Amino acid sequence: MASPSPQTPPNPEALANARIMTTLPTIDHQEALALVAKQHWAELRSQLARWPEPEIADLLIELTPAEQVVVFRLLPRSLSSEVFAHLEGDEQNDLLGQLNSEETRQLLANLSPDDRTQLFEELPGLATQKLLNLLSPEDLREARQLLGYPEESVGRLMTPDYVAVRPEWTIGQALEHIRSRGRDSETVNIIYITDAQWHFVDAVELRRFILHPPDETVSQIVDENHVVLSAFDDREEAVQALRRYDLPALPVVDSQGVMLGIVTFDDLLDVADEEATEDFHKGAAMTPLKTSYPDAKIYELVKKRAPWLVTLIFVNIFSGAVIAAFEDTIAAVVSLVFFMPLLIGSSGNAGAQASTLMVRALAMGEVELRDWGRLFSKELLVSGLLGLFMSIVVAVLAFVRVGPEVALIVALTMFIVVMVGSLIGTLMPFILSRFGMDPATASGPLITSLADIAGVVIYFSLATWLLGLW
Amino acid sequence: MASPSPQTPPNPEALANARIMTTLPTIDHQEALALVAKQHWAELRSQLARWPEPEIADLLIELTPAEQVVVFRLLPRSLSSEVFAHLEGDEQNDLLGQLNSEETRQLLANLSPDDRTQLFEELPGLATQKLLNLLSPEDLREARQLLGYPEESVGRLMTPDYVAVRPEWTIGQALEHIRSRGRDSETVNIIYITDAQWHFVDAVELRRFILHPPDETVSQIVDENHVVLSAFDDREEAVQALRRYDLPALPVVDSQGVMLGIVTFDDLLDVADEEATEDFHKGAAMTPLKTSYPDAKIYELVKKRAPWLVTLIFVNIFSGAVIAAFEDTIAAVVSLVFFMPLLIGSSGNAGAQASTLMVRALAMGEVELRDWGRLFSKELLVSGLLGLFMSIVVAVLAFVRVGPEVALIVALTMFIVVMVGSLIGTLMPFILSRFGMDPATASGPLITSLADIAGVVIYFSLATWLLGLW
Repeated sequence: MASPSPQTPPNPEALANARIMTTLPTIDHQEALALVAKQHWAELRSQLARWPEPEIADLLIELTPAEQVVVFRLLPRSLSSEVFAHLEGDEQNDLLGQLNSEETRQLLANLSPDDRTQLFEELPGLATQKLLNLLSPEDLREARQLLGYPEESVGRLMTPDYVAVRPEWTIGQALEHIRSRGRDSETVNIIYITDAQWHFVDAVELRRFILHPPDETVSQIVDENHVVLSAFDDREEAVQALRRYDLPALPVVDSQGVMLGIVTFDDLLDVADEEATEDFHKGAAMTPLKTSYPDAKIYELVKKRAPWLVTLIFVNIFSGAVIAAFEDTIAAVVSLVFFMPLLIGSSGNAGAQASTLMVRALAMGEVELRDWGRLFSKELLVSGLLGLFMSIVVAVLAFVRVGPEVALIVALTMFIVVMVGSLIGTLMPFILSRFGMDPATASGPLITSLADIAGVVIYFSLATWLLGLW
Repeated sequence: MASPSPQTPPNPEALANARIMTTLPTIDHQEALALVAKQHWAELRSQLARWPEPEIADLLIELTPAEQVVVFRLLPRSLSSEVFAHLEGDEQNDLLGQLNSEETRQLLANLSPDDRTQLFEELPGLATQKLLNLLSPEDLREARQLLGYPEESVGRLMTPDYVAVRPEWTIGQALEHIRSRGRDSETVNIIYITDAQWHFVDAVELRRFILHPPDETVSQIVDENHVVLSAFDDREEAVQALRRYDLPALPVVDSQGVMLGIVTFDDLLDVADEEATEDFHKGAAMTPLKTSYPDAKIYELVKKRAPWLVTLIFVNIFSGAVIAAFEDTIAAVVSLVFFMPLLIGSSGNAGAQASTLMVRALAMGEVELRDWGRLFSKELLVSGLLGLFMSIVVAVLAFVRVGPEVALIVALTMFIVVMVGSLIGTLMPFILSRFGMDPATASGPLITSLADIAGVVIYFSLATWLLGLW
């Protein structure tokens, strides 16, 4: 390969995602598509070898199935498996359908074990079974073991590809071992130290091996201070550990402390993003999408959104029933209806604020279930102040528009419903968690609907009573 | 230090965060607090030296200011600066107040440049000025440069501590240089290759230096395939690059391609979490909190929540005005009021679903502004199906409870309002983005309130018309 020209500035327009520059001294996306159209395969091959994998994956999904398989076959073997890992589940499935079984076998053999687990998880059961049959006995055993861990567990994210050395070795011996084993493993930037029975001892950055003299022993650079995960831990705990300890990879051990594999930061970042997306979707009263929105099918979107919408209809029937029950009050003072939307709206909005604060603080590990009492007291104060402020605003409005009597009713109602809405919003996530449900479900329309019911009951009861209509 | 006992299994209860195990063969949180109480400083010092930094930071914030400074002084200098970096802004400020100026000077000198920028960002202006005066001329220049980048830019997250080698050096020379420079720099796991004028050439993992023979030249392991950021890029773009390219650190260059520093995955993970939290808070109609919820002051919470609540009162006044305008229709058929909450509720809920899907897909880079037309068509279909389904549900309800005439009105209204709510929810994030506002603001109560207005207008207009009351 030619020595790079150091004067070449990064080419900002080289790729689709224009604002992230790459230093590719190569063709851009459009030029690559043109090469495909002209079937200039040799040139395309030499250009693509210098592209980052995600860009090649993006190029692939724009091609016809026939072109796709030609381009995929052009790629050097190790590159092709990494490109494959960057495709989404159904894109992987489509591409696999184009490959013959020998190509599939080689692709699978080159995939890293965690990417393989992810592929097997996303494919239909029958397709997975077919692929498992193409694995070497050793890879098959490994795949079965990884798929044996619970869904959403650390075990499913884990790769057994890591480099381990012994504490009694010299640094020189360790480096020799790293050189002989390092080509395969996913993160050789961190070296794991285990005893002869593979019990985890420590994790040490590769740099420390370089910085120490080769005749020191490994045990001299061990500090016995590291974080480990269990393969059965929820993957969310691995994300919390990543957040807390800032480590690019975390070791996974069994209950005896025997090292099973590692989980890397890039997979955990994906988990953090997925979990946040799930919480957003649940908070908007829908079952979380598994695929990205543009890839989601119409039928899937309807199926994930309809059940909650229908459920909320039935919750809202209560509000309607309450309003109907106060028919006489409404008939007596119709101007009350004018203030209804803003009163029950404020109750729901304050509730949505409070529940969102709780849901996010719970998800980030900032608060825990047992903190509910302390947070309730805090919210009592905050919502009291908010209620007071808002009641002054509506009192002025109602006084100007209708008169002192309605102003009093509206102001009092506002004060109470903002507090009640906020407190429902504060408690609901904890109540859901307590009963094993996801608190994120509480943050949006559900809270709004519950606060609405409380709002109409309080408003019309208060009005009926204060207007002497009871 | 004694050689570790490899048989020791990880101690699961050693620390506060019980489910993440650490391999600490040391005391736990409670025992540490007991040592503080008994003033057994020497023992505490030797134990804490083996704790991870986040645990020491957690211990510190539980202590009185006087104890805090004693314990902080016990820590080895390099450890103390890392512990300091794990404290929150106001905790850092409190601790700094306890230290004398020589201690502060040393602490600042040991902080990594990106942690220093973060400290200066969060402290009040006067306090920052005082600290800047304690920096060495070189650190001061660096700090001024980093603080010169816009807020929320990549430059603010950057550290200039990295190791760079030249393409013409041999691997052996490069390793020698890494050894001499590597102690200080934040990520020696990735080595940067630059020319004599510091133009970025490539980034190569340290492992590749180990795996290649020492007499090869660096240019032989360069592949010219790497992603670079600009210091003026929004930090959100750096997160997108991390998501896409899975790199533990990204190089930052100026417009000439000169390397300025690096941004590491742990800082970008914090940004991703912060941005998601901001979107959650904005979606719940509040100004995002800068601190974690438990640390937020009452006054701050009220100030961030009240403005939107008041704004939404004024939005909801429209709904009230619409209802008041249809007083005669309501008086004629009071049972219409019964269905009002579930109709306008469904409109708002469908809108919240649609807007949340858009907001999250925009935030994750799954869709872009110019995709709005395609997504609008998709949502037209999805919301049409949802509306049809929901209108059947309420038609049955209304038919049973009131009769065919109201059932027809309610069913027709449901179909229309679910579609209108969904389409408002779909477009609003794009409209806000188009005008330079954050689309996240659109996802919750704002959409609900707008959908409410549309809902009452449609419902009562349709009812008045169909009942022949116009």
